Amino acid sequence: MDVPQAEPVIRAVTDAMVAGDTGYDTPTAYAEAFAPFALERFGWTVDVAAARTVPDVMTGIVEVIRLCTDPGDAVVINPPVYPPFTQFLEHADRRVVPVPLRGARLDLAALEEAFATATAGGRRAAYLLCHPHNPTGTVHTVDELRAVGELARAAGVAVVADEVHAPLVLDGTFVPAATVIPEAIALHSASKAFNLAALRAAVAVPGTAAVDRLARMSDVVADGVMHLATLAHAAAYRECGAWLDTLLEDLRTNRSLLQRLLAEQVTSARWEPGSGTYFAWIDLRQLGDDPAGTLLREARLAVNPGTTFGPEGAGFVRLNFAASTATITEAVRRMSGVLHG
Amino acid sequence: MDVPQAEPVIRAVTDAMVAGDTGYDTPTAYAEAFAPFALERFGWTVDVAAARTVPDVMTGIVEVIRLCTDPGDAVVINPPVYPPFTQFLEHADRRVVPVPLRGARLDLAALEEAFATATAGGRRAAYLLCHPHNPTGTVHTVDELRAVGELARAAGVAVVADEVHAPLVLDGTFVPAATVIPEAIALHSASKAFNLAALRAAVAVPGTAAVDRLARMSDVVADGVMHLATLAHAAAYRECGAWLDTLLEDLRTNRSLLQRLLAEQVTSARWEPGSGTYFAWIDLRQLGDDPAGTLLREARLAVNPGTTFGPEGAGFVRLNFAASTATITEAVRRMSGVLHG
Repeated sequence: MDVPQAEPVIRAVTDAMVAGDTGYDTPTAYAEAFAPFALERFGWTVDVAAARTVPDVMTGIVEVIRLCTDPGDAVVINPPVYPPFTQFLEHADRRVVPVPLRGARLDLAALEEAFATATAGGRRAAYLLCHPHNPTGTVHTVDELRAVGELARAAGVAVVADEVHAPLVLDGTFVPAATVIPEAIALHSASKAFNLAALRAAVAVPGTAAVDRLARMSDVVADGVMHLATLAHAAAYRECGAWLDTLLEDLRTNRSLLQRLLAEQVTSARWEPGSGTYFAWIDLRQLGDDPAGTLLREARLAVNPGTTFGPEGAGFVRLNFAASTATITEAVRRMSGVLHG
Repeated sequence: MDVPQAEPVIRAVTDAMVAGDTGYDTPTAYAEAFAPFALERFGWTVDVAAARTVPDVMTGIVEVIRLCTDPGDAVVINPPVYPPFTQFLEHADRRVVPVPLRGARLDLAALEEAFATATAGGRRAAYLLCHPHNPTGTVHTVDELRAVGELARAAGVAVVADEVHAPLVLDGTFVPAATVIPEAIALHSASKAFNLAALRAAVAVPGTAAVDRLARMSDVVADGVMHLATLAHAAAYRECGAWLDTLLEDLRTNRSLLQRLLAEQVTSARWEPGSGTYFAWIDLRQLGDDPAGTLLREARLAVNPGTTFGPEGAGFVRLNFAASTATITEAVRRMSGVLHG
């Protein structure tokens, strides 16, 4: 995001550096800071003793998947989706099974079929849910989560939820997957909402029926946790509520601006804004399969190519609207020049 | 270490936070900062393009081991040694083969035998060298490294060197394993010498004959690298040479102080100081198998229990002498009270 860092986070990091507090972490510090944030923002009572700090979201996802599946087992994902899902799962010798979104929503019938196939012959399998969904910004509903839980339970599929964008829900309230699916394990982090990709940490939180499963995670996973990152994230969760509220208001304004500018200037673009994240997933199929390449070449406009999120992304681009009004306005002007110039 | 953080490192971290430079890393930044440091300190010309930034030393070790071996394959280590070696290798489904040190030196005959057994039937195998050795502080000699290289080459065993303590050689000059064993891949980091465990990053550097092997490392490994950590480590490598020289001088002084105090006050203790690291590996077998437990209970003195480094550590403790004169003096006084009080 193109936003300055929150003062309490800067202070936490600087104070630790000056004090020489650059050693090792305490195991429950992250969950202790996240729990009151989760209660206030999501109405979610997090069991601090059952949660586990992990180095970052993707490492946490892989380690949880390792608890639920064996090498060669299937992990179902919903493309178009965050590219590291496929990369990390394949690196962990898991078989990625794509069940594409239907429009911007989960395809429950296709999930049911994929779960049955994945678990045929008694094999273990997992489902990696992206909630809110990156790149579409879709926030799954309680009914969708409940249906996912029922399908997964019936098939014996483990549910792992990447909830890194949870604080960035712009309409309504975020419903944590583990509050609806007690067997799920969710990954949370302040890294996206508070612009801390440079200083990552995350926490794995089990639903009430997944506590024993998560307890089996090896202690070596926590070895990679960086103390300074947990200090920064703790400051974000504890002291930056007002900062986050301002950010969310700005993101709503930017989303409206982008929607209006596209409607006015890029009439061939199609975008249905999601309820969460700072991403716009824009259909530019009129420019062919690689609109991002065309925009970069012809207008020096850099957006994420849709195909990196899966073959379903051909003709789409992902644009980050956590930027200034000037940047968003100029981006649309350049898109317009390429499409209608 | 009980030392204040170096000013250039504090400044690099603070400046990045204030500037909002909290996003993603550039792939070669770490190696570009390490290369001049390695040349000046070790006379080692690092091939920046061939090096790979990794999230931390242990993650780098595991990922390099994955390039050289398959699940179930043997990895030879030399206990007593840094406990995460065993923990991480077992977590990565490798079989740990201990070849204990002989005194404080490598046991070349036992290594030869272990390499032969490990590679029987054409299996792949690796050797994880700890250089300088933690906990003994042993700095392996050129002759030892050359012999290791010959044995490994003859048996077809891959050599991986954990060189995280390389900047902390107190006597003579550190000789990088990859300069003697071209097939080796070494892991380096500023995290130990510059007290940056809270903000970790590392770099894998191949010997001239291991460039192709390291090039096969998956791009997902770099995903976990934290930009703020690479900024901090780069500042350490580039701007903190004088700080490090002062630290080394202080460590030499502390080592002499500890040796003198032990000789005077704890005559039953046995310690042969190594040439590197800030660790004293002290033989306190007179107190039984768990002297650390006894010292904690009877004198409220916390040292690392020797058995965590392997069963060979029974009766030993590891003491960190990167502390103030007062702390070292008080520690020895307490040991003396328990052993001779």
